[in-house]
Amino acid sequence: MSERRRQDPEAAAAAATPEPGAADGRVRVVIEGVSPSVDGGRFAAKRVIGDRVDVEADCFTDGHDAIAAVVLWRREEETEWREAPMRFLNNDRWRGSFVVDALGRYRYTVAAWVDHFLSWHHDLTRRVDPEDIRIAALVGAELIEGAAKRAQERASGADAKRLAGWAARLRAGGDAAVLKAIGLDEELYAVATRHPDRALALVHRTEFPLVVDPERARFSAWYELFPRSTSPTPGAHGTFRDVEARLPYVAELGFDVLYFPPIHPIGREKRKGRNNSLSPTADDVGSPWAIGAAEGGHKALHPQLGTLEDFRRLVARAREFGIEIALDIAFQCAPDHPYVEQHPEWFRWRPDGTVQYAENPPKKYQDIYPFNFESEGWQALWEELADVFEFWMAEGVRIFRVDNPHTKPFAFWEWAIARLKRKNPAAIFLAEAFTRPKVMHRLAKLGYTQSYTYFAWRNTKWELTEYFTELAKGPGREYFRPNVWPNTPDILTEYLQFGGRPAFMARLVLAATLAASYGIYGPAFELLEARPRDPGGEEYLDSEKYQIRAWDLEREDSLRELVARVNKVRRENPALRSDWSLRFFPVDNENIICYAKATPDLENVVVTVVNVDPYHTQTGWVELDLAALGVDERSPYQMHELLTGARYLWHGARNFVSLDVTRSPAQIFRLRRKVRTERDFDYFL
Amino acid sequence: MSERRRQDPEAAAAAATPEPGAADGRVRVVIEGVSPSVDGGRFAAKRVIGDRVDVEADCFTDGHDAIAAVVLWRREEETEWREAPMRFLNNDRWRGSFVVDALGRYRYTVAAWVDHFLSWHHDLTRRVDPEDIRIAALVGAELIEGAAKRAQERASGADAKRLAGWAARLRAGGDAAVLKAIGLDEELYAVATRHPDRALALVHRTEFPLVVDPERARFSAWYELFPRSTSPTPGAHGTFRDVEARLPYVAELGFDVLYFPPIHPIGREKRKGRNNSLSPTADDVGSPWAIGAAEGGHKALHPQLGTLEDFRRLVARAREFGIEIALDIAFQCAPDHPYVEQHPEWFRWRPDGTVQYAENPPKKYQDIYPFNFESEGWQALWEELADVFEFWMAEGVRIFRVDNPHTKPFAFWEWAIARLKRKNPAAIFLAEAFTRPKVMHRLAKLGYTQSYTYFAWRNTKWELTEYFTELAKGPGREYFRPNVWPNTPDILTEYLQFGGRPAFMARLVLAATLAASYGIYGPAFELLEARPRDPGGEEYLDSEKYQIRAWDLEREDSLRELVARVNKVRRENPALRSDWSLRFFPVDNENIICYAKATPDLENVVVTVVNVDPYHTQTGWVELDLAALGVDERSPYQMHELLTGARYLWHGARNFVSLDVTRSPAQIFRLRRKVRTERDFDYFL
Repeated sequence: MSERRRQDPEAAAAAATPEPGAADGRVRVVIEGVSPSVDGGRFAAKRVIGDRVDVEADCFTDGHDAIAAVVLWRREEETEWREAPMRFLNNDRWRGSFVVDALGRYRYTVAAWVDHFLSWHHDLTRRVDPEDIRIAALVGAELIEGAAKRAQERASGADAKRLAGWAARLRAGGDAAVLKAIGLDEELYAVATRHPDRALALVHRTEFPLVVDPERARFSAWYELFPRSTSPTPGAHGTFRDVEARLPYVAELGFDVLYFPPIHPIGREKRKGRNNSLSPTADDVGSPWAIGAAEGGHKALHPQLGTLEDFRRLVARAREFGIEIALDIAFQCAPDHPYVEQHPEWFRWRPDGTVQYAENPPKKYQDIYPFNFESEGWQALWEELADVFEFWMAEGVRIFRVDNPHTKPFAFWEWAIARLKRKNPAAIFLAEAFTRPKVMHRLAKLGYTQSYTYFAWRNTKWELTEYFTELAKGPGREYFRPNVWPNTPDILTEYLQFGGRPAFMARLVLAATLAASYGIYGPAFELLEARPRDPGGEEYLDSEKYQIRAWDLEREDSLRELVARVNKVRRENPALRSDWSLRFFPVDNENIICYAKATPDLENVVVTVVNVDPYHTQTGWVELDLAALGVDERSPYQMHELLTGARYLWHGARNFVSLDVTRSPAQIFRLRRKVRTERDFDYFL
Repeated sequence: MSERRRQDPEAAAAAATPEPGAADGRVRVVIEGVSPSVDGGRFAAKRVIGDRVDVEADCFTDGHDAIAAVVLWRREEETEWREAPMRFLNNDRWRGSFVVDALGRYRYTVAAWVDHFLSWHHDLTRRVDPEDIRIAALVGAELIEGAAKRAQERASGADAKRLAGWAARLRAGGDAAVLKAIGLDEELYAVATRHPDRALALVHRTEFPLVVDPERARFSAWYELFPRSTSPTPGAHGTFRDVEARLPYVAELGFDVLYFPPIHPIGREKRKGRNNSLSPTADDVGSPWAIGAAEGGHKALHPQLGTLEDFRRLVARAREFGIEIALDIAFQCAPDHPYVEQHPEWFRWRPDGTVQYAENPPKKYQDIYPFNFESEGWQALWEELADVFEFWMAEGVRIFRVDNPHTKPFAFWEWAIARLKRKNPAAIFLAEAFTRPKVMHRLAKLGYTQSYTYFAWRNTKWELTEYFTELAKGPGREYFRPNVWPNTPDILTEYLQFGGRPAFMARLVLAATLAASYGIYGPAFELLEARPRDPGGEEYLDSEKYQIRAWDLEREDSLRELVARVNKVRRENPALRSDWSLRFFPVDNENIICYAKATPDLENVVVTVVNVDPYHTQTGWVELDLAALGVDERSPYQMHELLTGARYLWHGARNFVSLDVTRSPAQIFRLRRKVRTERDFDYFL
């Protein structure tokens, strides 16, 4: 190999054979298989503020000695570790926990040691020979004197004194039964184990990273709209003021993230017309993703939307409604983006002296110039792109949806997101990477807070079950937080094109209950927009990507009430705020899917059933796992349907459901257990 | 945390957040998930000489650029890497291979790079616009000139010249179709890809270790006997000379490792009598595991067995029979072991001034002193214990069975085995650790060549299927090489106690065909010894552990012929030389187990069926996976039963078997496919 060796921050073990003889060979404990662990500690696991972090490890030693183990943890900027005890589970597995109460980065690891006091104590419980016990008492006295010394050193004078007392009584000898009783004194155990001998403790070498995000990183409801389509005057260009007027509507629908496609000046060179036409007319508004023009680039606003002052006002007003504004960051340039002239070194140039536009031969995207991340000027480019985020963060934006992050280097994102989250650990980055699974996972590992998913194309019961089981239970759940969308401006699935109103209803309920984070592209979604540009394609006809649309929000057939109701159910049921508890149940009908989410204490259990066939009413028997849901199988339980308010009494695991596509293809039940009975009345929790 | 931080060679990632901005940000490729990988490269994967090592990794980059990847590998003592190309499998997975042709330690890793020539070539195949093609020709010329320059630098003058020629023709311009044809010239592709631009290549940071052992590490048949029980005179103490006389018998049985319990002087203090009695008589010979007496310790021979000269002669004679002598190394001392006086610091002392014997309260083993590995003198102790192995290696011993390795520190074994295998990479260490799974796996990871298993207690079809599937297919197979024993001097299972001859036959065939390495404790095994000392226990009555036994090898009911036949089948069928190909097939009878092993090319396929019920004849329909075994389901195939020589024609997947416990509860078939038919004769491979 002749090329220069690159740093691969990737990886793992040391290059040389470890030579344990070089260290202290008396360290006999082993720590293996720490979890959570993302690529052996190369990447951070993710949690949200307030979470209890359960750390597990295999800890063991040779022979029969007892061991003890602790989790060590600290915020990354702290130097002192805090500790939490680990307890033995089974099969050499130990677990300890701590609660994360601050945003930002943490570190954790595991320490363990052979504990001779514990071994002595364990053996003493089983000793019967009096002479044995007398000798053991002396051995124990020595161990306890050691603990007393350590207590003294740590200024636990009271403990030291008590320990010395026990040691003296053990040294005094006498009746074996008395000595055994002294040795097994529960208070001695409690005090001595506070001062263990950790001289030969092992600390696992990896300091595993952990990122703690705000709760919205895990539980969020997104609403995407095109600001330019919000004018009350049909055909007029909408403004930030118009969006401000739309805030009560978005709040009524119950969303807490309002997300815009790019809001920057739109390029004029090679501008695309309606329906992606290559021959635009003078009044065509262009695609917001063709970023940059004479008025500026990624740090400027499209003049027709309003001023920076208007934008700031909108961000502030939205926050009053509990809504965060999210921006779409698309790192690409229209040909007239100022960067092209200011930084020609950031682009790839063709031998004919033109800039290399985006292409996927034979397709050409001449209105889009990608950055050349192999440029000699890559460092300045990285700085500038990070600065784009910082600019909008300074304007109050905390949530960013990133367009096609998988077409920019992974190393850039890892660097940029780490830097930005150091400045604002509440920042949320959503990766819009509809690509191969390992690429999507890499982006999530390296720092993206949330990730788009394949949800839009998972429509059958089998597909949904497989996919969401992987998301909720697979190893990727430590870092990959799904954000699921039934539609986007780029994705109008055939399921929605052909399924009509029941399809929209079913997909809404599936998205909102299968995933703690979901979003819709509106008002297209609630207004059931389903006309494709081309048969077999997923583009919208008259897509807002290329033109202004006027939407009649007051239409009779709007799903706005259902959307509002579903989001209310999400807010009121903590079970729906996270994904890991998801559990599917059998139904004897391949068109009905049934699943539950529950809080760890089972206080809040939500069972959802959805008819995934948008064409026919479906009925079937669902079979709940009552034990897993905390239900006594001998008692009836109440299923409170939260969309209609209806209440049903169910008995046993198997119950009948009927999902009428002409009314509602989905039901969301809060499961209520009977807590007491007085005469003829049942009270349900 | 106040204690001093211990080195944990364990682990993985760096302590600090990787800051990719510090490296060259233009390196865009990613390498993840390299396999084989034992704990992220902390431990070595294992292979035997002649193996092809398949290395896989996920390699990908951002965007749509093509990449290339290679496996880098070298022997550990070499500094220069060798390379093997990797090819794309699917889902971003790549694989490359190399063959290991030397014993000892290797390293391997993966390198990958974005390859602009490959991207250019791929795009060119799809370009149609003539102007596009003309510009692409110029871009390609530049890339090819780069390749020419690299060829020149590596003294590939001929390649450089040819590349320059292609570049010149592309630069010359002209007809687009002609330019495209030049660019897609297959020879250009072949030459240019020999000189890729690896300036921005990534080399995975982990240099994964690999240990290459002799074939016997994977494929071995062990025979354990007590040398003192080999005298032709009943009751007399056997000698190495007697063992020498036994060699033809062992060779006839077909074993290639002859393994002895400890052959050192046996302690006299606290000696145990027959059947583990605490009141021995003067003529009791003691347990060979009570090591050490006035005559010496672990480097001495028990005088009654013979001299060092006798031992050397035995080792040499055995080798003439293709048999290696294996020693049992048990690191513990009888009270009169010379170490106790010479190195009191290596033992734990009780307050009453006596040495702490082994105990598991309330049980005491006063004839055994364990070493104290937490001794201040641990370094000298490690050196001395390693020296015990070296002493016997100098006497020609290459194979060691280690007694209870899990009661000595893991770090010691890792250090000692690495040191010993550096001196003799052909050395084989078998870990006798019948303990918890993670402890057994740790010993295998840190260097043990082979490991005892739970086989003796896996008797039902379900147990065997689960366990051997885990051994053959689980991640542990990279380092855990099973050596399975139906019996040992410590283990006489209830299955053998009650199952009689059919049980011994079934267990022999299972051991020999399920695992490439197996062993029996003889002559107890072939002579069907099945009397337990205590009901419900697994100890033998009149165990050789405490007394001399006389065995009548010529007994009519001996299984020696079956053993010889089974070992012959193993030698003649390469499918049985390794474990990974194991595959179980359904049988409609829970008492019949059916499985196959095959060579990778399917030239040698062995199907075994065993009746695991030793009491009744069982019949059933087995259902082979013919496609996996390379059999055309429309043709008959021959099942050549190798124990009896019988040949059967089978048709299709389902066939009937009958296993008569009064004759043979097991059949081992070589599957022979029809290779040609001439008139009425079928020829089978």
